[in-house]
Amino acid sequence: DLARHCAGLFNSRLLDRVQLTITAGPTREAIDPVRYISNHSSGKMGYALASAAADAGAQVTLISGPTNLPCPDRVKRIDVISAADMHGAAMAMMGECQIFIACAAVADYRPNNCADQKIKKDNDSMRIDLVRNPDIVSAVASHSLRPFTIGFAAETQDLLRYARGKLERKKLDMIVANDVANTSIGFNANDNAVTVLTANGEQNIAQMGKNQLAAQLIQLIAQQFLNVQS
Amino acid sequence: DLARHCAGLFNSRLLDRVQLTITAGPTREAIDPVRYISNHSSGKMGYALASAAADAGAQVTLISGPTNLPCPDRVKRIDVISAADMHGAAMAMMGECQIFIACAAVADYRPNNCADQKIKKDNDSMRIDLVRNPDIVSAVASHSLRPFTIGFAAETQDLLRYARGKLERKKLDMIVANDVANTSIGFNANDNAVTVLTANGEQNIAQMGKNQLAAQLIQLIAQQFLNVQS
Repeated sequence: DLARHCAGLFNSRLLDRVQLTITAGPTREAIDPVRYISNHSSGKMGYALASAAADAGAQVTLISGPTNLPCPDRVKRIDVISAADMHGAAMAMMGECQIFIACAAVADYRPNNCADQKIKKDNDSMRIDLVRNPDIVSAVASHSLRPFTIGFAAETQDLLRYARGKLERKKLDMIVANDVANTSIGFNANDNAVTVLTANGEQNIAQMGKNQLAAQLIQLIAQQFLNVQS
Repeated sequence: DLARHCAGLFNSRLLDRVQLTITAGPTREAIDPVRYISNHSSGKMGYALASAAADAGAQVTLISGPTNLPCPDRVKRIDVISAADMHGAAMAMMGECQIFIACAAVADYRPNNCADQKIKKDNDSMRIDLVRNPDIVSAVASHSLRPFTIGFAAETQDLLRYARGKLERKKLDMIVANDVANTSIGFNANDNAVTVLTANGEQNIAQMGKNQLAAQLIQLIAQQFLNVQS
């Protein structure tokens, strides 16, 4: 309809020719050639943001972990598996991208050693020693060619307090707080509801479809980005 | 064509009204509400076997871990997540099923404790303590109401020796040996090539599409099953 069309025209001006990078989906950390550690991220939110950003005129690069989603129209996708791969792909965008949205559910830890061969189950118990993965959104936000940086906080408890801590500690421009304990939103759900935090304020976006919410988030991000630019 | 049609008619007689259960796909073992351990099984081979068994006239129950595959026609699917769930679903079929094909890539271990809340990344390193999962195919083969039991061995090295050891140790009727180090077959590939071992012999099935290979495997399984019955 007309309202939607006009909104589309307005959005299309907001990020016209802005270089925007989004990470999406889970990462997989190999235990051996067969087994891995991963998480329940479907990639839906990141893909919806990529699509909404392209609608708003941005040149979108989507760095995606393993998902079953088709690449959105007018979006350039780079496929990665592990957090280390994703970190490398993100660093390669520094100096090129003006906005970076870290929507992927990056594994915080990876097995210390990936076994060359499938590990045999000889024992009643086993132990996997893990080491920290690179913190991609921190590396982006503290880079000398720092883009406008948006993080996500997916938590099962104490969401807003944790999200504000992460915003400050990682020196982000914005953070999107997502309650993943609520199964009607987050991860595999088609709906989402979030709170967006900046240094100066916070704003709720009520539960709605991920595509619609993505369009609203991109508008908020664009407004903040343009404020900072001017 | 005619040959295929006739083969189809022959197959349709082979397992007419036989109750057959197949497990397929990976399992996921929760680390916390967000993270899990899994493996690269796509479920394609198990789903192809379920479809081929239904073509051969069997009443098929497919116990499936998380996959992105549609349930084959004329197959009853039971969805499970963890190895413990899959074990429970398999045990519920004892006394009912006459043939059991354990095609799922069941996680051998699960985290000792699943954390109630998302684990925080406070440390540079972390450790996951794992305990053994129930061995589903062993539990089936040693059940008092034991069906004709077929296992799979997916290995990256020393395949046939390991497969024969597993056949004997787990008291299986047949085992299908699958070299998953070869990326053109196994796991996510559409092709497969296997060696089928019984107590008395072994038989290679050369590389072909998983559907075609599934039809050949079901025929081999049916012949062995009917031999044992008579």
